[in-house]
Amino acid sequence: MSAKVTIALDAMGGDLGATVVVAAALATLERDDTVNLVLVGLPEVLARAQAQAKGNYGTRLKFQPASEVVAMDEPPAEALRHKKDSSMRVALELVKSGEADACVSSGNTGALMATARYVLKTLPGIDRPAIISAVPALRGPTYMLDIGANVGCTAEHLLQFAFMGSVIAGDMLDVERPRVGLLNIGQEDIKGNEVIREAGALLARSGLNYIGFVEGDGIFYADVDVVVSDGLVGNVAIKTMEGLAGLLSSFLKEEFQRNSLRKLQGLAASSALHALRARLDSRRYNGATLVGLNGIVLKSHGSADQVAFETAVKTAIVEARKGAPVQIGKLIEKQSLECIRA
Amino acid sequence: MSAKVTIALDAMGGDLGATVVVAAALATLERDDTVNLVLVGLPEVLARAQAQAKGNYGTRLKFQPASEVVAMDEPPAEALRHKKDSSMRVALELVKSGEADACVSSGNTGALMATARYVLKTLPGIDRPAIISAVPALRGPTYMLDIGANVGCTAEHLLQFAFMGSVIAGDMLDVERPRVGLLNIGQEDIKGNEVIREAGALLARSGLNYIGFVEGDGIFYADVDVVVSDGLVGNVAIKTMEGLAGLLSSFLKEEFQRNSLRKLQGLAASSALHALRARLDSRRYNGATLVGLNGIVLKSHGSADQVAFETAVKTAIVEARKGAPVQIGKLIEKQSLECIRA
Repeated sequence: MSAKVTIALDAMGGDLGATVVVAAALATLERDDTVNLVLVGLPEVLARAQAQAKGNYGTRLKFQPASEVVAMDEPPAEALRHKKDSSMRVALELVKSGEADACVSSGNTGALMATARYVLKTLPGIDRPAIISAVPALRGPTYMLDIGANVGCTAEHLLQFAFMGSVIAGDMLDVERPRVGLLNIGQEDIKGNEVIREAGALLARSGLNYIGFVEGDGIFYADVDVVVSDGLVGNVAIKTMEGLAGLLSSFLKEEFQRNSLRKLQGLAASSALHALRARLDSRRYNGATLVGLNGIVLKSHGSADQVAFETAVKTAIVEARKGAPVQIGKLIEKQSLECIRA
Repeated sequence: MSAKVTIALDAMGGDLGATVVVAAALATLERDDTVNLVLVGLPEVLARAQAQAKGNYGTRLKFQPASEVVAMDEPPAEALRHKKDSSMRVALELVKSGEADACVSSGNTGALMATARYVLKTLPGIDRPAIISAVPALRGPTYMLDIGANVGCTAEHLLQFAFMGSVIAGDMLDVERPRVGLLNIGQEDIKGNEVIREAGALLARSGLNYIGFVEGDGIFYADVDVVVSDGLVGNVAIKTMEGLAGLLSSFLKEEFQRNSLRKLQGLAASSALHALRARLDSRRYNGATLVGLNGIVLKSHGSADQVAFETAVKTAIVEARKGAPVQIGKLIEKQSLECIRA
């Protein structure tokens, strides 16, 4: 039997509103009876959710009111300074106090990161928290970090990302020593810039299962579980994937709706096309972890629907069960970064 | 009637050997009688090609022997220093002497760039030549540069790339003022690093049709014709596309071969699937221009087949007709980079 975990859900974030979060919460409670949830939101939203739940889940579903909401386009510093009772902040405070083992929000990424850093603090030995996400690959997902929190990383930062990514990928894939690669312009040692080459040298001595430089196509094909990069490069890579996947899906739709014959073809091939769409479904990869903090924080995509939000909650549950932050802390301590550099 | 142009083809580059280049050459001569070609290669290869051509094209097809071949994994500096009679070098010399208006090679990219810089020299006002390539997008192709020649660019370099990209995209898309975007981690002015923000400021005053920052997904969706980036970021983006497109194509194949029913579905849907594959066919986008040189040099993918190689030759023909290097020279002079900075 799995240990009980409690996840706090920010009901107010995202473009689709609280309905999605509440529906995902009830589905999660139905599916997994080892999970408790705390819904955080404006009182009127919680009242509606409470009515919807019909008291079915007893103490497994709690409601924590918050009086403010961080807007999707609100500057992070303003949210941090002026919205001390936002749903996002209250959810993070629940993680800090230990009332929740993790929290999930579809809210403004910058505000979530800034508030999480302030409330939870970064782990000892970590200079900068990062954002890590799974992407589809030929043999199961690859974990990429940093995908957008940090621009202008040093070699030391990239090394820290590698430690954090190794723990998250190990937990999620359930493997002992995930293979770690550094995203670069080529595979030879002389390729890339000074920072990447220095990070490669640090990684080679890190004790991690470092496999070397990986190119953009290697994210999907190389035998690699974690791909480490500066946040600018990682962000461009992951958004390029999103864009191309969207383009291909538009092309697919167009070709199967071009005329009546093609529509018939689409019907005839519907099970294969359905299976294909399911494999490419971005909702299966929703949920990026803000990693390097004293606590587990999941960022769900702003446009996440119920299925996508549930995926993020599932990731939070696994990380909570495995105690990812504690593992990272121990790994950092054990490898003692200072020694590596010396 | 179009003006006659002469293209030199390095018959020795690429993984598939001279057969592909010769077949593409003969197909080009059949298709377009305003094009003359010079095949450059080892004498025995040229003899076979000559036999294959059966004298059909008269003086439209010439043969230029070279005694050496640059290996695909040869260090660029070694190729430059020791292989002064390589097919690649001889093809570039034909461009320099004016005997050819452009050249196309599937050879070693690093060696081609190093040799091209040495033989042709960079254009006045250009510090670093770049590599530009078309990628598929929702409304016609987007041109991306730099996709791998330069790591660690300054804002000034990015500005120069924008001028060069604007000319190439304008020529290929036949538009007056192509829309230019800067690849970045977000669209707001404060996003990215110092270099990208400074490049944005330079571009805003450049006289180019600058539309601002573009994110990874914007390559396919934003109303943009040219996307400018550092070579490391551009290379990661384009290789990520290659990898994801390959992954999706594997998934598609798998789903339509999973069992007999699915195979029947594939047959039933074959015209739509065929059309889809054609739209995604990387051979339609083969051929990256080494831009910023005193001459036109096309790099065809090492694994290019005949169709793909022909695409690269077609690009070379358009750039030769339009005189891309002269246009770039004039644009740089007109905008007088120095003034912009002052």
